Amino acid sequence: MSDAYARAGVDISAGNAAVSKYRDVTADWRHPNQLGAIGGFSGLFALPEDDKRALVASTDGVGTKILLAARSKRYSSVGADLVNHCVNDILVTNATPLFFLDYLAVGKLDPEVAGALVAGVQSACRAHMMALLGGETAEMPGLYAQDDFDLAGTIVGIVDRDQVPDPANVQPGDVIVGLPAIGLHTNGYSLARAVFTEAEYALPLPGDATRTILDALLESHPSYLHAVRTIQKTVAIKAMAHITGGGLLENVPRTLPEGAAAIFDPSTWSVPAIFTEIVKRAKLNEHEQYRTFNMGVGYTMIVSPEDGARAEAAFSGAKVIGRVVAREAGDEIVRFER
Amino acid sequence: MSDAYARAGVDISAGNAAVSKYRDVTADWRHPNQLGAIGGFSGLFALPEDDKRALVASTDGVGTKILLAARSKRYSSVGADLVNHCVNDILVTNATPLFFLDYLAVGKLDPEVAGALVAGVQSACRAHMMALLGGETAEMPGLYAQDDFDLAGTIVGIVDRDQVPDPANVQPGDVIVGLPAIGLHTNGYSLARAVFTEAEYALPLPGDATRTILDALLESHPSYLHAVRTIQKTVAIKAMAHITGGGLLENVPRTLPEGAAAIFDPSTWSVPAIFTEIVKRAKLNEHEQYRTFNMGVGYTMIVSPEDGARAEAAFSGAKVIGRVVAREAGDEIVRFER
Repeated sequence: MSDAYARAGVDISAGNAAVSKYRDVTADWRHPNQLGAIGGFSGLFALPEDDKRALVASTDGVGTKILLAARSKRYSSVGADLVNHCVNDILVTNATPLFFLDYLAVGKLDPEVAGALVAGVQSACRAHMMALLGGETAEMPGLYAQDDFDLAGTIVGIVDRDQVPDPANVQPGDVIVGLPAIGLHTNGYSLARAVFTEAEYALPLPGDATRTILDALLESHPSYLHAVRTIQKTVAIKAMAHITGGGLLENVPRTLPEGAAAIFDPSTWSVPAIFTEIVKRAKLNEHEQYRTFNMGVGYTMIVSPEDGARAEAAFSGAKVIGRVVAREAGDEIVRFER
Repeated sequence: MSDAYARAGVDISAGNAAVSKYRDVTADWRHPNQLGAIGGFSGLFALPEDDKRALVASTDGVGTKILLAARSKRYSSVGADLVNHCVNDILVTNATPLFFLDYLAVGKLDPEVAGALVAGVQSACRAHMMALLGGETAEMPGLYAQDDFDLAGTIVGIVDRDQVPDPANVQPGDVIVGLPAIGLHTNGYSLARAVFTEAEYALPLPGDATRTILDALLESHPSYLHAVRTIQKTVAIKAMAHITGGGLLENVPRTLPEGAAAIFDPSTWSVPAIFTEIVKRAKLNEHEQYRTFNMGVGYTMIVSPEDGARAEAAFSGAKVIGRVVAREAGDEIVRFER
C-alpha cells in the first residue's frame, strides 16, 4: 500500500509523523472549553455561558480532486465536494450546520472561474440552510500555476452536548448500517490520477459505459445530513463515521469502544465501477483498497441489532453491511467476511 | 498603481470583478441569522436560541508572504501572521476570539516543517486564550512545488450584539487614533517581492541597518486585541478598521458614515524604513503607497474628540493621526494633509 501510494507522491508515514508533531506542539495548553471529539472528525467547543450546547467546527480541502477539476475546467461540482465533505465531518457529532467560510487561492484570478466556484459553494450551503458567512480569495502568482487553484473551507455547526454520540455505548451484537458512496468523494485522487492518463479521461468507464472516466472521477461528494436525520426519526444512532481518507479501515475504528471490532460483508453492497477499474490497474490488495478508498460506503452508523431493519426501511439506500463483535487478542479491528 | 501591481502579477480589477460575481451568486438567498457586517472584515451570525449574542467568523491566508517564508525556510513567525491577522479582522466587530482552525497545504509533507508551522499557530492562539480546535494538512503533489506551502485559517469569536460598533455613530469632529504597524504585516508582498532580488535579502535594510531586508519583510503581523481592550477601559470606541489590503484608503472608509471623510496627517506617525525603500524603488505616488501598504498604521479607531488624548494615555503607541470631517461633493473619502 505505502508503495502504491508513495508512487503517486503521497507519503502516509509523513502524514502520521506530522500528526504526532501536532500532538507534541499542542500538548502544552488546551482551552478549557475544548471538548473531546470523536476520532477527530471535527472539534467541539463548549459555548460560553451556555451549559447545554457546543459549537462544532471542521476545516477541509478538496484534495487533488481539485487538479482534475481545474485542468478539465469543470468548476460546478467542486463547491458541493467541499461543503458536503464538511457537513458530513460535523454530522458524526450530530451537529447541525450553521455557517461556512471558503478559502480560494489561485495563480491568476479569473473572475468567471472564481464566481463559478463560489456559486457551487453557495448552492451547497443553501441546500443545508447554512449561511455562506464569508471567505477569502487570494491571488498568489508564484505559488500556483496560472490555471491552478486550491479551495478549502471551514464549517461551524451546533449540537446539544447530550446529543453527541458516544462510542462507549456501542457493544458486540450491534449492527453497522452503511450509506452508499457514489464515487471517490474527496479521497484517493493522487493514486487515481496516477493510474489514468489524461488521454483516457474522455473514454467510457469500463464496467459502466454510461459515463466517461472523468465523469466518474468528478462525481460529487454527497451530503448525508438528510439521510441521517430521516433515519434518526425512528432509530437511535449510537455512533457514526464519515468514510474519508483511510477508508473503512481507519474511520470505522473511531466509532468503536476498546475491545470491539467490526466485520463487514462486502457482498452486501455494490462497488462503483470506478473503484473496480482503479483496483485492477493499481493491483491493490484488499487492505490497500479499503484503506485508500471508500469502496462504495460513504458513511456508517452503528445501531442496536433490532434497529438495523428499521434504518433500512427509513431511508432507501441504507443497508446493514456489517456487525460489531468482541475483539480477540491479535484480531484486526476491521475485517471483511463474505 | 494598477500598473505597478499588475507588473507584480496581481490584478486588482480582477479582484473587484470577482467580488462583484460573488455578490451575484450569493444574492439568491441569505440565511436569516446572518447579520450585516462592518465593511466585510468578518461575518456575523446571530447565535440560535440566544437573543443577545452573535458569532463572528473570518477566513484568511498569509498571502505571498508565505513564499518568502517557505523559500527562506523561516517557519516560526507564519503562524502568528495568520492568527493575528484573523484576530484583528474580528476585533473590528469587538468580538472576543473563541477558536481557530488552520489549513496547511504542501507539495511534499515535511513533518518538521509542518510541526514548526502549527507550533506557531498554537502559540499565537494561546496568546489569545483561544483554542486551536482543528485543522487540515493536505499533501498535494502537482499543485504545490515540493518545498512550497500555503497556510490559511479560520477564526470564530463571539460578541454581544449591542457591543458591535456602528459607524453611524461617527460624526465630523471625531478623531482617528492609530496603532503602529511594524512592517507590511500580510499585505503588498507580491509587489515587495518584485522590487527586491533574492540576492539582496541578506543585505542591511537601507535606513535601518539593525536588520536585513528579509528580516524586515518577515516581521510578524501583530495582534491589536490587547491594545484595543486596554483603550476600551477608559474610552468608548465608535468604529475600528484593520488596515490590510487596500491600506488606509480602502479600509478606513468602511468605518465612516455616508457624507463623512477622513483626513490623516502623515507627520504624526513614523513610516518603517521598509516602506520608504519599497516606495522609492517602485516609484509609487501617494495614492499608490496608501492603497498598497499600511505605511505604518496597522489599526485605526474613531473616538470622540475629547477621547483622543485619553486613548493616547491609555496605551503607549496609540496616537491621534487624523480626524473625521464632513465630505463635500467631489472630495476624496480619505485625504492626507500635513
